[in-house]
Amino acid sequence: MTIEMNNPPRTWEEIVEKKRLEAFNKIPEAWRLPAHYTDRVNEDACWNVLNVPRECCILTDRELQITEEYDAVALVEAISGACFTAEEVAVAFCKRAAIAQQLTRCLTETFFDEAIEHARGLDQFFREHGKVKGPLHGLPISMKDSFCVKGHEATVGFVSFIGKSTATTNSPLVDILLESGAVLYVKTNIPQTMMTADSENNIFGRVLNPHKLCLGAGGSSGGEGALVAMRGSILGVGTDIAGSVRIPALCCGVFGFKPTAGRIPYGGQSSGNRKGNPGIQPCAGPLATSFRDMAFFMDAVLSARPWDSDPTALAVPWKTATAKKSVLNIGVVGEDTTTYPFHSAVARTLSSAVEVLKQAGHRLIPLDTAPPIVAEAAALSFKLFALDNSRTPRQHIDASGEPPVRSLTDSLPDYSVRRFSLEDLFDFNAQRAEIAARWHRVWLENDLDAIIMPGHRKTASQHDTYGHPVYTVVWNLVDWPACSVPYGKVDASVDLDSDFVDGAPCSVQVVGRRFQDEELLAVAGVIASSLHG
Amino acid sequence: MTIEMNNPPRTWEEIVEKKRLEAFNKIPEAWRLPAHYTDRVNEDACWNVLNVPRECCILTDRELQITEEYDAVALVEAISGACFTAEEVAVAFCKRAAIAQQLTRCLTETFFDEAIEHARGLDQFFREHGKVKGPLHGLPISMKDSFCVKGHEATVGFVSFIGKSTATTNSPLVDILLESGAVLYVKTNIPQTMMTADSENNIFGRVLNPHKLCLGAGGSSGGEGALVAMRGSILGVGTDIAGSVRIPALCCGVFGFKPTAGRIPYGGQSSGNRKGNPGIQPCAGPLATSFRDMAFFMDAVLSARPWDSDPTALAVPWKTATAKKSVLNIGVVGEDTTTYPFHSAVARTLSSAVEVLKQAGHRLIPLDTAPPIVAEAAALSFKLFALDNSRTPRQHIDASGEPPVRSLTDSLPDYSVRRFSLEDLFDFNAQRAEIAARWHRVWLENDLDAIIMPGHRKTASQHDTYGHPVYTVVWNLVDWPACSVPYGKVDASVDLDSDFVDGAPCSVQVVGRRFQDEELLAVAGVIASSLHG
Repeated sequence: MTIEMNNPPRTWEEIVEKKRLEAFNKIPEAWRLPAHYTDRVNEDACWNVLNVPRECCILTDRELQITEEYDAVALVEAISGACFTAEEVAVAFCKRAAIAQQLTRCLTETFFDEAIEHARGLDQFFREHGKVKGPLHGLPISMKDSFCVKGHEATVGFVSFIGKSTATTNSPLVDILLESGAVLYVKTNIPQTMMTADSENNIFGRVLNPHKLCLGAGGSSGGEGALVAMRGSILGVGTDIAGSVRIPALCCGVFGFKPTAGRIPYGGQSSGNRKGNPGIQPCAGPLATSFRDMAFFMDAVLSARPWDSDPTALAVPWKTATAKKSVLNIGVVGEDTTTYPFHSAVARTLSSAVEVLKQAGHRLIPLDTAPPIVAEAAALSFKLFALDNSRTPRQHIDASGEPPVRSLTDSLPDYSVRRFSLEDLFDFNAQRAEIAARWHRVWLENDLDAIIMPGHRKTASQHDTYGHPVYTVVWNLVDWPACSVPYGKVDASVDLDSDFVDGAPCSVQVVGRRFQDEELLAVAGVIASSLHG
Repeated sequence: MTIEMNNPPRTWEEIVEKKRLEAFNKIPEAWRLPAHYTDRVNEDACWNVLNVPRECCILTDRELQITEEYDAVALVEAISGACFTAEEVAVAFCKRAAIAQQLTRCLTETFFDEAIEHARGLDQFFREHGKVKGPLHGLPISMKDSFCVKGHEATVGFVSFIGKSTATTNSPLVDILLESGAVLYVKTNIPQTMMTADSENNIFGRVLNPHKLCLGAGGSSGGEGALVAMRGSILGVGTDIAGSVRIPALCCGVFGFKPTAGRIPYGGQSSGNRKGNPGIQPCAGPLATSFRDMAFFMDAVLSARPWDSDPTALAVPWKTATAKKSVLNIGVVGEDTTTYPFHSAVARTLSSAVEVLKQAGHRLIPLDTAPPIVAEAAALSFKLFALDNSRTPRQHIDASGEPPVRSLTDSLPDYSVRRFSLEDLFDFNAQRAEIAARWHRVWLENDLDAIIMPGHRKTASQHDTYGHPVYTVVWNLVDWPACSVPYGKVDASVDLDSDFVDGAPCSVQVVGRRFQDEELLAVAGVIASSLHG
């Protein structure tokens, strides 16, 4: 069944309606969920939809096996070991992503036919050459809407971009993934402006949290978070300037890694931001279902020498690193009780992690001087996000007549009436350098191997209530790598005042030093093993 | 003989007079040149003073041997092989530096006694432990005045800084060099504001070019250039934001390397600039008497993990690299005939280098699209140097009543009446990214291994006539590493209109890609060998 519109759209609502229909029509009828599922999808539903792909009988047993029993490393091995064809893997993930979309609105553009065709080509390559095309041979990878895939739109949630954002070239990262053998099949949903943790826009709607639809999926890579949690993807690419990889990871209970900026090629993306922003540099990074897939992604991308295809990518090859010590010195950033107190599940999760890591023999060091740095760093970051006095994203919103989404007013402090000057920026940069020096001292004085802390003072929460992304943005400000490791769930029977978020994923953020992405993942891997041991 | 002043100074001239006397008094009488030398030192003299250390009988034969017959690598080997003690090496270079100072005004602060004492300690360490203290054991290293050495001033040429700039801690790089076994004995002269290529200030005077005193020594690391050319140092540290390592290197006929910013720790320096400048990032790098000493310096510093002591240093270890191909693809950036035409010696030097490299079997590729990028990049860089609307360096000049030095008005375009805005900076950054992308395309489309070009359209020239540092600053704008390799001299018998600069050193600039410092030095080493073959 293909639904059609006859008249050319005029109002922004009509333009959106047409775009949504086109998107819906790309989902084959056989992959559409029955109404008894879709009727229950709404922003207030307390429904955990993670099992729907298994229950709905759209995927075969083999497709369930493909999508559920492997992480990226294992799946690539299985394909290269001829256990699965790239084509059947592509079909399985396309189907599962389509299901995830119908439950959580996690997708923007889909190109299932193209993906399956591409996978067939990989199978043919494999048969003809007796070897894989690259380290990601046959692996379906989902990407945030901002990445450009030739022939597809990259509206990044602005109605005014519809019809004007069809990519004529791939983003460098897209080319690298394709040349490494990946199969691209979907792009994922984001918030209008990408500067809120609620992934809502007026084109594709709001991403819902598959653990509980009434909770936010986080953002701005919220579609990735929901899709990976649904296992409609096992490896996705997000971007992060304030937590946009780590926030959906912690909200949706998956792994997420924000590397040092410039290590994963960031160039050639669609954006509603004014070019040349001298503030915080955004970066790209993976969301995954296993810890090891994060390093796997980094290694695969960096082995393709991204600095040859993207002038913004840094020519710093990926190193193999292992944790050098059996007893780690792990700094613990605790609660800023005054400004940003932890919700009870978050406090319990951190305490539990500390306990487990102590039991595992590591040295846990409370970093008492850290919370004031966090608050100061966050306040400074929010000013740096407001440097564009011409409010370019707002112009893109206004261009179509669409309204701003609600969370925009709460996600960051309001600097809309203030204009910053070049002199302000000098001062901000000086403060920023000072904050970096303070973290540096904290690290060295305690001879740290890693820092652990929550990624947020809450877990996923009711839509439009996430609040300021304080505990993630601090690491963007100083460009230190950080990853989010899922760890437990909210339990309303022990966590105070947490009925609404009962069952939401909990997590720990693990942080390392700038350009020591490899060392961080090595150490965080030890930590993750202890937590999941 | 110690000259004394009795009354406390009041005017800026009196303050300077006192400071100069103190500096002069630190040169032992036995190391002072007879008047028949010093009487001839003036800015108009056509005198090549390079042989004075050999002629003046202040150094012993062994001291001449120590200072003339080794580069840094060989000298460290000789000390660790017990051919020389660190003490006698220190004495030799202290004496030679003192002589260089009297001829070229290349020094600011001197601490000869401290250096010799420190060297004695190294000898004792060597005797007691039977091993060297570090990779720079016993090597005298000179440093630009901006580096802080505990107990010594770092006035960076501002009269208003006299008496207020005594360092209480070492710059991180100073600590690293000391811990690696280096002997620090002098700091070197710079221009007022460090933003001109004429190293003149009202405290320490003007650095003169030892090849010909009537020529400029370049800047802003001009004292380093003159001192290394005099072999009063064989390894010095400069800084570079527009060419400040490469310009003195090319003016004085020594090697100079501007690495990717942040690789050599830059933190903890004295500066008259407003903190937090969002423009071009300065960096530190070596000046040397041999090509291999540049990589030797990089390796020694980076092996000390500078990112542990300086929060601004990047945790990117030094890699060993070798030129992978015997036939190199070398791009040639030719003349911008309209805006920045080459002087005849510069044009001849480049042609000669191209010819020699072709003869050596390399592929030389004229980069016809490059000159317009150079001009555009330079124009943009000069705007980025004028971002500080409060003109902080000018305030430091005015604070004492001293006048600005003459070259300040000609070294960069005059933006003093213009105030830039935050919006301008967004536009500048966008242009900057575009220029980086264009260089990137030039590199890849020609499959380059290196770019060669002049470091300036002239050689060293009459004082205060250097002009805009166009051909160096382009690489600061995009943060690509570049080194200056001495190659021949001006020959008035073949170079048109070059009587005044006859005998001045010529050079070639060799450029690589960002973060590929190791690869650049490997390839540039092959080029340098061909040129010096």
